[in-house]
Amino acid sequence: MIKEEEEINRICKEVIVSIRPDDKEREEVKTVTTLIIANLNNKASEMGINARAISVGSTARNTWVSGDADIDIFIMFPADMSEEDLKEKGLVLAKSVSERYEERYASHPYIHAYFYVAETEYEADLVPCFEVKNASMLKSAVDRTPFHNEYVVTRLSGLEDEVILLKQFMKCLGIYGSEQRRKGFSGYLCELLILEYASFVKLLINASRWQYGERIDLEGHGNYKGEDPLIVIDPVDPKRNVAASVSLYSFCKLIDAARDFLAKPDQKFFMPRAAESMIHAEILKLVKERGTEFVMVTFEAPDVVEDILFPQLRKAETSVRNLIERNDFRVYRSDVTSEGGKAILVFELLVWQLPKIKKHMGPPVTSEVHSEAFKNKHSQPFRIEDGRYVVEVQRKHTDVVSLLKHELKSCSLGKDVSESVEKGYEVLKTEEILVGLGYFFSGYFGG
Amino acid sequence: MIKEEEEINRICKEVIVSIRPDDKEREEVKTVTTLIIANLNNKASEMGINARAISVGSTARNTWVSGDADIDIFIMFPADMSEEDLKEKGLVLAKSVSERYEERYASHPYIHAYFYVAETEYEADLVPCFEVKNASMLKSAVDRTPFHNEYVVTRLSGLEDEVILLKQFMKCLGIYGSEQRRKGFSGYLCELLILEYASFVKLLINASRWQYGERIDLEGHGNYKGEDPLIVIDPVDPKRNVAASVSLYSFCKLIDAARDFLAKPDQKFFMPRAAESMIHAEILKLVKERGTEFVMVTFEAPDVVEDILFPQLRKAETSVRNLIERNDFRVYRSDVTSEGGKAILVFELLVWQLPKIKKHMGPPVTSEVHSEAFKNKHSQPFRIEDGRYVVEVQRKHTDVVSLLKHELKSCSLGKDVSESVEKGYEVLKTEEILVGLGYFFSGYFGG
Repeated sequence: MIKEEEEINRICKEVIVSIRPDDKEREEVKTVTTLIIANLNNKASEMGINARAISVGSTARNTWVSGDADIDIFIMFPADMSEEDLKEKGLVLAKSVSERYEERYASHPYIHAYFYVAETEYEADLVPCFEVKNASMLKSAVDRTPFHNEYVVTRLSGLEDEVILLKQFMKCLGIYGSEQRRKGFSGYLCELLILEYASFVKLLINASRWQYGERIDLEGHGNYKGEDPLIVIDPVDPKRNVAASVSLYSFCKLIDAARDFLAKPDQKFFMPRAAESMIHAEILKLVKERGTEFVMVTFEAPDVVEDILFPQLRKAETSVRNLIERNDFRVYRSDVTSEGGKAILVFELLVWQLPKIKKHMGPPVTSEVHSEAFKNKHSQPFRIEDGRYVVEVQRKHTDVVSLLKHELKSCSLGKDVSESVEKGYEVLKTEEILVGLGYFFSGYFGG
Repeated sequence: MIKEEEEINRICKEVIVSIRPDDKEREEVKTVTTLIIANLNNKASEMGINARAISVGSTARNTWVSGDADIDIFIMFPADMSEEDLKEKGLVLAKSVSERYEERYASHPYIHAYFYVAETEYEADLVPCFEVKNASMLKSAVDRTPFHNEYVVTRLSGLEDEVILLKQFMKCLGIYGSEQRRKGFSGYLCELLILEYASFVKLLINASRWQYGERIDLEGHGNYKGEDPLIVIDPVDPKRNVAASVSLYSFCKLIDAARDFLAKPDQKFFMPRAAESMIHAEILKLVKERGTEFVMVTFEAPDVVEDILFPQLRKAETSVRNLIERNDFRVYRSDVTSEGGKAILVFELLVWQLPKIKKHMGPPVTSEVHSEAFKNKHSQPFRIEDGRYVVEVQRKHTDVVSLLKHELKSCSLGKDVSESVEKGYEVLKTEEILVGLGYFFSGYFGG
């Protein structure tokens, strides 16, 4: 055990050197950040706008992994300003300091801008928010971020390397990032986990024993009522679970990897796997070997951000899966993806064709009233099975493709997906699998 | 309603004339019965055997349907005689009065003999039994019969026609007879039902409202604890359900037909349908239209009476059906039969082939001990689904025929069936359906 601990420490020490930003990178990030903040504050003065810019996020806390610096600048406006004013003035101000930028949208619109230091490109999000008195007085979701920043900055000093190790570990597992497509761990959540357990290794030791509904409450003030795999009470907001977006999959993946790393520590846990793509012929060959059938529903991806799109695709996946199984076919696995402007629901089937006949169970023979109604309704001959009337009816759809071509729209698909499906969709079988899904299938079959 | 009652009475009156034995038939049956009894008693005297013969059953009670006279003669021996003595002397005595006979076996051996009056053949069962003091002191199951006879004879006078109507009604429904192949209503049960409800029509009115577990207790002394669709306490044995052999199917069939007859009274309810046979090509054509697949297990019928064979075949049916469904295939309907020395289990399938791959669910990822064991056991790559480890394994049998060819013997089949299967069996598919099952399939598809 002592030997393994030594090995783990040795590996962590070697890894951190290669993934921690060096002095040059830190200096450059600091330079850019300081410059943007100064420009924003000067412009605000010039324009007579009552606002001040602050640095938040991983670059403010020195917890970014080398090469991944995402500079976050929040532009704080007085809490008594109107939302419209904030939006208008915030964007004008942000644009005024940016050479090249895109307007983006989360719960609020913000500016994603590009800056250059010594020929290195840095990306920064410039986000207008309200400066509220405390986190319980939020006017918008982003107003919480300055409080997160303050909480972490004052406590994390000296533990930055632990956070960087954890983020890299999660990245390599594919569970870093709280966006809806991934449903993994956010940067802030990584920092809180390190604050709770004091080191990367101690976090892993604890995570390897986590149970569903694991609860972490740094301030001991939580009153979050939801049921999630992992509950980490926000130190600045007792009603909020910072880990609400962590899926059961991401939760389990961390637990599993924690055990593996502790049992067989290895540098490879910190080395990103190059994304692989399968060629079309390979996919078809593999499906043939499996003996299953793929049925895919494709339609134009609605024009919304992924965080809006993916929950709807997953809802559609569940709803369509239920439709398929309600019609007596059997789904082996399913998934969703969005590639090249198309949204795709993927179903791998064990049973995709069925005989024409179908058993329609009637009421128990002993139920006189229902029996009479049943016999009046059905003209075909009935028989008695297990004490109930049974008639044989014709199955409406004897294969899954026909079922989905005719009844997809009866499913609960989510607003934007539903609108897109209304405009038209295709149902494809294995031999019609779209090209361009090489990465998707590599992930699907690779586990 | 009055009009319908009149119509029912008119039909019953017309029907009873055609199905009630005429004077000639009654006279002949009485002559044969008297003769056999006299011969038995004389022979007993001659042989120095302490025994006396009595007439029991429907011919003793004038409740047989014309043409169906089964003469039952019980030869009563003293209760203190040994079973071996009874068996030996009883059979010797019975054989001594019979010109042509077969030795048969129920719970006791007995003689089935043929007698002739005016060129008409009559069949009679000559059954040795013990003359016990009361029905609670039975030495064998047949000892109860004389008590049944006594109970009914003294009460049924004047209601014979009602019993005859009921028996004919049930015969036409295919639910008359308590043998295990049919699991319908025995003659004695029919008589008790008429004693309870006083007439055929009143029985139907009541039966149309029967509920599962319906309880009839003429003597109000029952302490039968079992759960059966219909419970009719034996007036001579409070622990016994006379209707124990009535299947849920027969119970429901009577209820359904009672409602139909009362709603639309018709002579056709008393007219036996000629048994139809389907020709082989018809069967195959119909199966093709249904789109299902038949898989049949056939083996030599073990050399036991049907009352022993059929419960075992039904047990085998259930056990094999479970095997099939446990392996992810889907059974639509199943049945058993025995024809021409072969016993046959019939399965009609909705899903009879499956892909090679199979999902093997492992433990929840959070269960540390089980997870370690699972990962040590399975070398193939795993993935995480719904919080559990999952590996893909190869399905051992991708079709039902292969499954049954290899794993039938693992099923719980019943002693005699199991022994026969051990000697060899065949698994046939639709295109190999045996000829000679025309009557079976006519019943199967006809409802």
